Amino acid sequence: MTEDAIKALDENDPLRPYRARFDLPSGVIYLDGNSLGPPPRAALERLQQTASFEWRQGLIASWNDARWIDLSNIAGAKIARLIGVAAEDVIVADSVSVNIFKFAAALSEDGRALCVETGEFPTDGYVLSGLAHLADRTLSSVPWSDAPAFEEPCVLVKSLVHYKTAALADIAAWESAALAAGASIIWDLSHATGVIDCRLKENGARYAVGCSYKYLNGGPGAPSFVYVASPESERLRQPIAGWMGHAAPFDFSGDYVPAPGVKRFAAGTPPILSLAALDAALDVFKDLDMRLAEEKARALADLFLQRTAPLGLEVASVAAGRRGGHVCLEFNAGYAVVSALIARGVIGDFRAPDLMRFGFSPLFLSFDEVARAADHLSEVMKTQEWRDPAFNIRKRVT
Amino acid sequence: MTEDAIKALDENDPLRPYRARFDLPSGVIYLDGNSLGPPPRAALERLQQTASFEWRQGLIASWNDARWIDLSNIAGAKIARLIGVAAEDVIVADSVSVNIFKFAAALSEDGRALCVETGEFPTDGYVLSGLAHLADRTLSSVPWSDAPAFEEPCVLVKSLVHYKTAALADIAAWESAALAAGASIIWDLSHATGVIDCRLKENGARYAVGCSYKYLNGGPGAPSFVYVASPESERLRQPIAGWMGHAAPFDFSGDYVPAPGVKRFAAGTPPILSLAALDAALDVFKDLDMRLAEEKARALADLFLQRTAPLGLEVASVAAGRRGGHVCLEFNAGYAVVSALIARGVIGDFRAPDLMRFGFSPLFLSFDEVARAADHLSEVMKTQEWRDPAFNIRKRVT
Repeated sequence: MTEDAIKALDENDPLRPYRARFDLPSGVIYLDGNSLGPPPRAALERLQQTASFEWRQGLIASWNDARWIDLSNIAGAKIARLIGVAAEDVIVADSVSVNIFKFAAALSEDGRALCVETGEFPTDGYVLSGLAHLADRTLSSVPWSDAPAFEEPCVLVKSLVHYKTAALADIAAWESAALAAGASIIWDLSHATGVIDCRLKENGARYAVGCSYKYLNGGPGAPSFVYVASPESERLRQPIAGWMGHAAPFDFSGDYVPAPGVKRFAAGTPPILSLAALDAALDVFKDLDMRLAEEKARALADLFLQRTAPLGLEVASVAAGRRGGHVCLEFNAGYAVVSALIARGVIGDFRAPDLMRFGFSPLFLSFDEVARAADHLSEVMKTQEWRDPAFNIRKRVT
Repeated sequence: MTEDAIKALDENDPLRPYRARFDLPSGVIYLDGNSLGPPPRAALERLQQTASFEWRQGLIASWNDARWIDLSNIAGAKIARLIGVAAEDVIVADSVSVNIFKFAAALSEDGRALCVETGEFPTDGYVLSGLAHLADRTLSSVPWSDAPAFEEPCVLVKSLVHYKTAALADIAAWESAALAAGASIIWDLSHATGVIDCRLKENGARYAVGCSYKYLNGGPGAPSFVYVASPESERLRQPIAGWMGHAAPFDFSGDYVPAPGVKRFAAGTPPILSLAALDAALDVFKDLDMRLAEEKARALADLFLQRTAPLGLEVASVAAGRRGGHVCLEFNAGYAVVSALIARGVIGDFRAPDLMRFGFSPLFLSFDEVARAADHLSEVMKTQEWRDPAFNIRKRVT
């Protein structure tokens, strides 16, 4: 693709104005928004407001005056629009791990087995194994599959977008198979929300959790979210019965009465500073057509793959068609290559044993940046600068 | 007590210099640090640094470069000193509700019943009831007692300081009775940490959780902490097996291998913005002798009680001797009185049905402020200004 063609892509990009809402450091091409989104300006401002005004000036009164008490619902409603469900059916609370635990416990109360596919994001399996041990549930591991199939009426935790391959599951097909088999699917939207046009309700999804610090740019470790379709939530008993999920937390009554709807999935007091930053970050998505976001992410990734194709690296992620916002290239010295790229200001990440992962957040990346990132990778490979021993010292934890 | 005597108390107060570390709004006497501590200046600065520098500039690299990955342990070690246990035995993670769940699940794995006293902070009982239902445990409710006694080898969740009465449990006596009965106590330190000289290890406490947004001033909804004595932690299987509690989270291995020590009580990714504010807030306590903090809180409360004694209000909290940092006065129109006080700039809180609760954070309150707060209460009662209908509209949620 010529430089003019790339320039034209940027000029015709309907999402181009979104870039100005982010405050990215200069000299950096950030291809890791799939791990930690960068701060929207509004999130930084809101954090300042929440800390210096609401906490410092308002003190305890801010639970009411600044609506901290409703913030889990307020932020949830914003996420609801992005994933295509009713505003009142999403709440922000706890972490993805804790929320998977709550959900899997509630849904398997009828004795159904817990189920996870091989190659699923490991923590999803860890959480199910802990629950199985605690509550005497059966846990089955089944092969990863493109074709929906259930051998038994189980509770399956499944990523909508696979964290390595970026494979995108067909929600409607899976839900239809689940209904036929008496199974339930807890969709893990961590690598999907903010980059995929999920349309959960339209596709029949009933339960989901997700991460808000990746494409949603909510800040490091920003709290997770939970979606349950309204009529379903009334019959679910969430086991971590903390006061924030109580129908009347400040009555301090002795008995636990779950709040109506998805609010019962709250447990303890939410981390307001982190939650406020997330709430503001979500405003960036206001009025955004998620279809455009998904299409742009895919176009950015396609450009990157096309431009690096001559290197002959194995593409370990879905090469064409709908997929998540990232791609993975396989290379046995991948860690060193990613380090060499970081030294050049191109930030991607590495997943053991040999995957170089690059994410294409559609809101702040330009086609020009992605082309330049691809060129940097090409140079690093051709010059073999990754062989510099400095790039192979494993000092990064994440 | 004369005005001179009060002045002398402030002049001789060894904790007087701590006030300058807080940025309190003018015109306010804040007697609700037991619900939400005010921001230490260092916490506001740190939040700014974490958001604008670490997140904005450092992006994903801050997990390593800014030590986000270790922050749960770093903050935990600071709390450890305050509660008198080894630095490596405390971690910050999740909420109090979630942590009680993890602990009670792990400790009752051998079949012991779960146990809670009547009048305990309600969420502690809610969480146990949820766990009992999920994991088929027995849950006993026993009468609240000053005298340690166990009828069976159970797992008891007990507040060190009662949220209403401020009664302070005798850790050593309870632990000794627990050991004799084969029982375990999960100490809920929420109303104790930062105001009581707990000396957990010296007194034989083995397990504790606590809240960091009250006397620790960590910020609204700041994450909770967990303490387990080192040798004990190795045998505990925490059921919410998230990746942050894994021995090697970034190996992405299929099997869950719990991290050594208390780190296994971590689950998902911690909310870094909230955690960073807490970490900085804890530095205010560096070098503080907790005995002095406890003594000052008690002296402040004594002054308040003494000065309001002529009003003849029932003292619903421990009237003399060691106790937590707050007092409760009973009055059937307590909500209106607390509202009238707030209008005068004296912030306390109300706990249904009729308790006015006032907290005496030792680090930022002066004896003079407490005397003035008592005088405001006396005036509100004598003038009956609380009868103004505006003060009786229940608009506050918390």
